[in-house]
Amino acid sequence: MYKCNEARLKESIIQFSQFGATSNGGVTRLALSKEDLQARDYFVQCCEQLGMEIKTDDMANIYATLPGKRNLPPIVMGSHLDSVVRGGRFDGVLGVLTALEAVRTIKENGLELEIPLTIVNFTNEEGARFEPSMMSSGVLSGKFDKERVLKSTDVSCITFEQALKESNYQGSEENRLKEASAFIELHIEQGPVLEAENVEIGIVEGVVGMVCYEIRITGESNHAGTTPMKMRKDPLFLANKYISLLIEKLGQIDEELVYTIGRMNVSPNIHTVIPNKVVFTLESRHKDPAKIKQVEEVIHSLPEEEAGCKVEIERLWNRDTVVFDETICNQIEEACKSFGYSSKRLYSGAGHDAQFIASYIPTAMIFVPSINGKSHCEEEETPYEDCAKGADVLLETVLNLQTKFSLKVQEKQTN
Amino acid sequence: MYKCNEARLKESIIQFSQFGATSNGGVTRLALSKEDLQARDYFVQCCEQLGMEIKTDDMANIYATLPGKRNLPPIVMGSHLDSVVRGGRFDGVLGVLTALEAVRTIKENGLELEIPLTIVNFTNEEGARFEPSMMSSGVLSGKFDKERVLKSTDVSCITFEQALKESNYQGSEENRLKEASAFIELHIEQGPVLEAENVEIGIVEGVVGMVCYEIRITGESNHAGTTPMKMRKDPLFLANKYISLLIEKLGQIDEELVYTIGRMNVSPNIHTVIPNKVVFTLESRHKDPAKIKQVEEVIHSLPEEEAGCKVEIERLWNRDTVVFDETICNQIEEACKSFGYSSKRLYSGAGHDAQFIASYIPTAMIFVPSINGKSHCEEEETPYEDCAKGADVLLETVLNLQTKFSLKVQEKQTN
Repeated sequence: MYKCNEARLKESIIQFSQFGATSNGGVTRLALSKEDLQARDYFVQCCEQLGMEIKTDDMANIYATLPGKRNLPPIVMGSHLDSVVRGGRFDGVLGVLTALEAVRTIKENGLELEIPLTIVNFTNEEGARFEPSMMSSGVLSGKFDKERVLKSTDVSCITFEQALKESNYQGSEENRLKEASAFIELHIEQGPVLEAENVEIGIVEGVVGMVCYEIRITGESNHAGTTPMKMRKDPLFLANKYISLLIEKLGQIDEELVYTIGRMNVSPNIHTVIPNKVVFTLESRHKDPAKIKQVEEVIHSLPEEEAGCKVEIERLWNRDTVVFDETICNQIEEACKSFGYSSKRLYSGAGHDAQFIASYIPTAMIFVPSINGKSHCEEEETPYEDCAKGADVLLETVLNLQTKFSLKVQEKQTN
Repeated sequence: MYKCNEARLKESIIQFSQFGATSNGGVTRLALSKEDLQARDYFVQCCEQLGMEIKTDDMANIYATLPGKRNLPPIVMGSHLDSVVRGGRFDGVLGVLTALEAVRTIKENGLELEIPLTIVNFTNEEGARFEPSMMSSGVLSGKFDKERVLKSTDVSCITFEQALKESNYQGSEENRLKEASAFIELHIEQGPVLEAENVEIGIVEGVVGMVCYEIRITGESNHAGTTPMKMRKDPLFLANKYISLLIEKLGQIDEELVYTIGRMNVSPNIHTVIPNKVVFTLESRHKDPAKIKQVEEVIHSLPEEEAGCKVEIERLWNRDTVVFDETICNQIEEACKSFGYSSKRLYSGAGHDAQFIASYIPTAMIFVPSINGKSHCEEEETPYEDCAKGADVLLETVLNLQTKFSLKVQEKQTN
């Protein structure tokens, strides 16, 4: 059992938070921006110092590999170095830096690996510069069409294709992450559960499925002073009634279900005019597809005509629940036990590259607590102690998987 | 009893709708714009042809007066020629053109007046180019400070003062409407009541009082996928609850009460983020100040802290109920009866110059029906027949007031 070096990990986190540092202690490090490239350069330098071999693929994903004695598919760790605008110092980068810390601890202790160990940095996970998010893992897993994402543009109309070319990090398609023994992504929870329940490590069993609807209610604008209540076709009053119904009915489905009305627009949005249109979104997530189905049934139970208003209901998009690899989850749990770290099995409510990679590589995730559940903001925070515990668990899991997979191979050869 | 000429009035309405005509049959004739000045020029020309004397005051209000045998304070009719952007062909201008038609009918029939009769065109009633609305009547009645409104600017940063100077319609302050025997403003209803109840003339007894509040609810933004329902501080859910409460309680106050949530803004307004702030307005109107007081009590009964959110309640502005002159209202009713036109006494839900003028001159208004209650839009419509009935009632009222006031003066002199 090897413990990582908390002080060294802290130093790395502080070091990387300089790349794109904001004045309020956050980070703006958009994918393939100058700041992202600085972080990449420094990451590559760190890996080379550890004797790792660097490769990049056509999506500018970086793979730093520590060779193993056997020529087996690698065990892969990592996450992403890019951030949203005025994001935090932990989201993404912590998965890369705990992996780096794991390798440093391996080297420091002179451990020899049976199976190659790779750190990956995925390009443009946030989708904050180029939509969609999880772009590279999406292309690698065949969820997204490469030709299409190459045309994605940032606010300055620079295409992703152009940014790739100018990055100096675009490599060959054959370097893509294809076969691997396992993929483990460590990430901050981005939610308040671990902190609230005083749990040190989250064992992520999967990513919840979700659905996002847009509900558009059209009524009739009229003068707020001259139109009696009974003669109104007010879409805002109807929206209010429908939202009450939704909140009431969705609240009965399951206590783990989450549902959010994040966007709502009123037209013409003038205080002296009865609105003629209200549009709002309803987004809901749960690991059990049957619960999501119930959500959709509740939404579709809303009458499409009421109070003189017309109601359109459209599903904007959805995502199926992703279930992670049970073996890896068990290994993470074992690792927690070895260190005496408290742990909790949970599903991720947020999306991660791991959910796409899981479609072709045995995958799981490790969560560390987020203070107040904050993420994608400058206040994002995880105590260094918790980061180090995550690194310990990551390293221990990787080492145990090394043994496990090597034994498996030996068994196979013996048979 | 003299009837106006419907064909001639129709011709006038069509003529004036050319000044600022939009492609969809509406009018954009902002105060003191080129289009407004064209309309003014043509209006003055029409009045001069009838032998009326033209004066303008320092606010560029136009007064066209037909002299009377006695040197008594005039009876005044009129409204405004300006419109909102993409407004209709009737709002405001109809009050001026029915007054013009009344004078034409007087001249045509060779009637001699005891008391001078004045048509007024108020500058910038809409406030669509220069805020606030009802600007000139506001200055005349002392509700607004002249120096302040002179500094009001349009979208091109032209001040009202500059527009006045360039208009060629700015006259002397001593020409302002001061003393008058009566002021009668004819206007479209801008609401659906007359049409729905199949009533030809609205006798406007006053303008309802109103109050406008802004309610600001601050919660906490968090990730829509990772934050359990119980750990949220969602201002949108609380706004929904409060709006339900408001609708329920306000609905119990009085069936004539109107209340509108016209403006609502959600921040940051992203479908995957729990909002951190919701701001909405509540505007309510009723002729009885006691009912408005009840509205304010309901609003202030909302808890200022709930569900982890903070609630701020601010009264943005209010307006007291204005009660019009009972004698003039009775005269309007008599006039309706003479012609056999159906009538209904009501309060105006919208604001008009008449409400300010009423503070120092005996005032009332005549409403004609608005099809579907539409106004401030290109679909604004009143059948010419209904316009003509309004003109009939306006003329008859003015003539009866002539007799009434003359007799009064005779009585006084006899006493």
